[in-house]
Amino acid sequence: MTATASSGLERDLRALLGPEAILPGTTRAYLTDATETRNLRGRADAIALPGDAHQVAALTRWCYEHDVPITPRGGGTGYTGGAVPLDGGLVVGLERVQRIRSLDPGFWRAEVEAGVITADLRRRARENGLLFPPDPGSAEQSQLGGNIATNAGGPHAFEYGVTGAWISGLEVVLAPGELIALGGSIRKDVAGYDLASLLIGSEGTLGIVTAAWVKLIPAPEAALPLAAFYADNVAGCAAIEAVYASGAVPAALEYFDAAAVEATRGAFPVDVPANAEFMVIADADGTPEEATRIHSELTETLTANALFVHAPTDRREIDALWRWRDGVSHAVTAQRGGKVSEDIVVPIDRLPEAIDETVEIGRRHDLPACSWGHAGDGNLHSTFMIDLDDLAELERAERAADDLFALAARLHGSVSGEHGVGLVKNGQLARQWDPPALAMHEAIKQVFDPKGLLNPGKKLART
Amino acid sequence: MTATASSGLERDLRALLGPEAILPGTTRAYLTDATETRNLRGRADAIALPGDAHQVAALTRWCYEHDVPITPRGGGTGYTGGAVPLDGGLVVGLERVQRIRSLDPGFWRAEVEAGVITADLRRRARENGLLFPPDPGSAEQSQLGGNIATNAGGPHAFEYGVTGAWISGLEVVLAPGELIALGGSIRKDVAGYDLASLLIGSEGTLGIVTAAWVKLIPAPEAALPLAAFYADNVAGCAAIEAVYASGAVPAALEYFDAAAVEATRGAFPVDVPANAEFMVIADADGTPEEATRIHSELTETLTANALFVHAPTDRREIDALWRWRDGVSHAVTAQRGGKVSEDIVVPIDRLPEAIDETVEIGRRHDLPACSWGHAGDGNLHSTFMIDLDDLAELERAERAADDLFALAARLHGSVSGEHGVGLVKNGQLARQWDPPALAMHEAIKQVFDPKGLLNPGKKLART
Repeated sequence: MTATASSGLERDLRALLGPEAILPGTTRAYLTDATETRNLRGRADAIALPGDAHQVAALTRWCYEHDVPITPRGGGTGYTGGAVPLDGGLVVGLERVQRIRSLDPGFWRAEVEAGVITADLRRRARENGLLFPPDPGSAEQSQLGGNIATNAGGPHAFEYGVTGAWISGLEVVLAPGELIALGGSIRKDVAGYDLASLLIGSEGTLGIVTAAWVKLIPAPEAALPLAAFYADNVAGCAAIEAVYASGAVPAALEYFDAAAVEATRGAFPVDVPANAEFMVIADADGTPEEATRIHSELTETLTANALFVHAPTDRREIDALWRWRDGVSHAVTAQRGGKVSEDIVVPIDRLPEAIDETVEIGRRHDLPACSWGHAGDGNLHSTFMIDLDDLAELERAERAADDLFALAARLHGSVSGEHGVGLVKNGQLARQWDPPALAMHEAIKQVFDPKGLLNPGKKLART
Repeated sequence: MTATASSGLERDLRALLGPEAILPGTTRAYLTDATETRNLRGRADAIALPGDAHQVAALTRWCYEHDVPITPRGGGTGYTGGAVPLDGGLVVGLERVQRIRSLDPGFWRAEVEAGVITADLRRRARENGLLFPPDPGSAEQSQLGGNIATNAGGPHAFEYGVTGAWISGLEVVLAPGELIALGGSIRKDVAGYDLASLLIGSEGTLGIVTAAWVKLIPAPEAALPLAAFYADNVAGCAAIEAVYASGAVPAALEYFDAAAVEATRGAFPVDVPANAEFMVIADADGTPEEATRIHSELTETLTANALFVHAPTDRREIDALWRWRDGVSHAVTAQRGGKVSEDIVVPIDRLPEAIDETVEIGRRHDLPACSWGHAGDGNLHSTFMIDLDDLAELERAERAADDLFALAARLHGSVSGEHGVGLVKNGQLARQWDPPALAMHEAIKQVFDPKGLLNPGKKLART
């Protein structure tokens, strides 16, 4: 789009939404996401900040009439460039569509707009004795709509499932600009094909979620984590398998390999043994009695071959452990200034192999590598640490990421467990799906978005 | 299809699968399902019983080449005619595709073929200390594939979710006869659009599920139900709402209205108070200590305004209660020989209204009515009891069912929570979805089944 056309676009959109709702396309905060750790930045002709779902529909209608691409945007915390505008058009930020329309503690449910910050929803639920379980790593910045767009997970997805498990209905704008509802405050529904699940995780390529009906549950009264350190991957992974075999159900079951432990050692709430090369965090929740019972089972299982176990019991120590956990990704980035990190998934019995292989792939590409993540779900954050000023390193890291995707496919896993495809994993689905399924993927995109204007160039099954 | 063409079809299919795998189209057992309680019976040209997934693909390919409709069939326990062949073609029974390909207790997972009986899978899991939670009413007859096709629920779906919540991957035959896999033994996956969820609940109209990767969990060691009787709907529904408000999470939360209690009173394990016009069953599970704690909380909440509480504690008494529960549907049918029963869903706060309205709709159509079902999920089995020999009654019951669907829509609910649409609810989706969503529903069917041969005439969004 030329500069003149772009300013015409801004003018038209200001007329549609009011001048304060349209920002210049050069507004940097809207042109990247967490992929700035790999130098990814896009280009937009304008940024729109609609105030409600009807304005999202009006914008979509306008764009569909004028053949203008739309990049929907939540909190901008994604790891795949899903919210990065590739080549002009309109970025639609949902941050002002941010009301909690209702929260009904007596029936464990809420109706929440897409721009509500995940952590705010979690706090509002807590104040009412309830839990909204999804706890993605960037919950203080991420928005519910973005969580839905990627079907975000988090540590406690092990017990509670990913975001989609807590959605009973969606309000969504479909092309060419229709605001519709699928489901609602109902807990079961097989009246139609499950279009809501199709939209969940579709990364804004099939429609723009403007609100959701969410399910809540009574909040566990207690949660007791423990962190166990091991001498190597073998001992650590054996401990994880032993948790499965024990039949105790932790709320979260996380792991951190040698380099991840090393990168974050200084920030850990207590002294980490010098020879620790693997760490497991497990969380036990429920009533105080349940949490204590599960915690004691987990302690027994995880202590067996551990070098050291840290089992905080007071609120302040427990918070410190989770704060450390939240900081792992940033601490790893800080090692060399940049990183390429991919959230591959493998069947749980292949986790040890995937952890070793991540380091080996780094070695092959001459890059320091590490991994950590949601062990119980077989979901790694396999990471290559890079110097962002060294373009050759970034290129090597992209090739290393490609090897990771091949690894996920070889182990009958998936190239993404919670970050989605965005643009960095375009075409990778072809490694794990059969051609007829890939053709369906493309046909569905065509049905929902015949003009190809909804987050174009993202979540492509084939390239 | 003419008789000659039909016998030609049988001959060709015998050549394809071997003679023992093809039955005549007149084989009555394959021409109806639970809708025989409303006189529904179909017509087929042949019945095929493939022995494995590849034969299902071969059959589908053959049918797609020869423009022959396919009606996939599981255990035949459906309530909507979903497995009833409407107008000839081939019925594909999955009963011989019935291997448990693997069951991996150490990692809480199994790979199971579509024809495995639900209760058999549950027993195999139990033998390994694990639980496959879905417990549809006809678990001894229904098959996993059919449960997936309708996304079946059951009493314990309140705590554990419906069938789809326990599926991590599907093996499915897509038109024109391609055997593909979506997902697998992985617990998270956002690499592609969620086609598996789209197929779950699609009632064989988008593809034929041949196997699934299922998730299991450690089996609760104890389960303690209680049954509480009330003088009327008001007291009973207040008790249900009080359970929600208490924050205790029962594994199941069921209700039975006056006529449902009356129809099953004689079979109840203990004497039912003469003036009982509403019953609630709640189940508490977990470790023995947890189950006891939740049971005690539920007892306190449910006893407050109850006439009588039956709280069995030994295995034999508990089994007797659930056996009674399993028999409710049959006992209601036995009242007059037939019934028209619909599984509408409403937001939980509208349950009292939906229960009253069911009886009122019956009164309007001069039919005895009752309801029971999954109170915690707002999922009613609203039922009109009919004399099958009286065609006028059946017609009145069909009109009454139509009023039920209107009721569900008015209360922002759904026309089906677990039985699906089949043919008896064709077009009802239009009451609850907006036209653009209905158009998507139809476009998706077109993408998956361009010739319209997969379970034709079922799950139609509009008629």
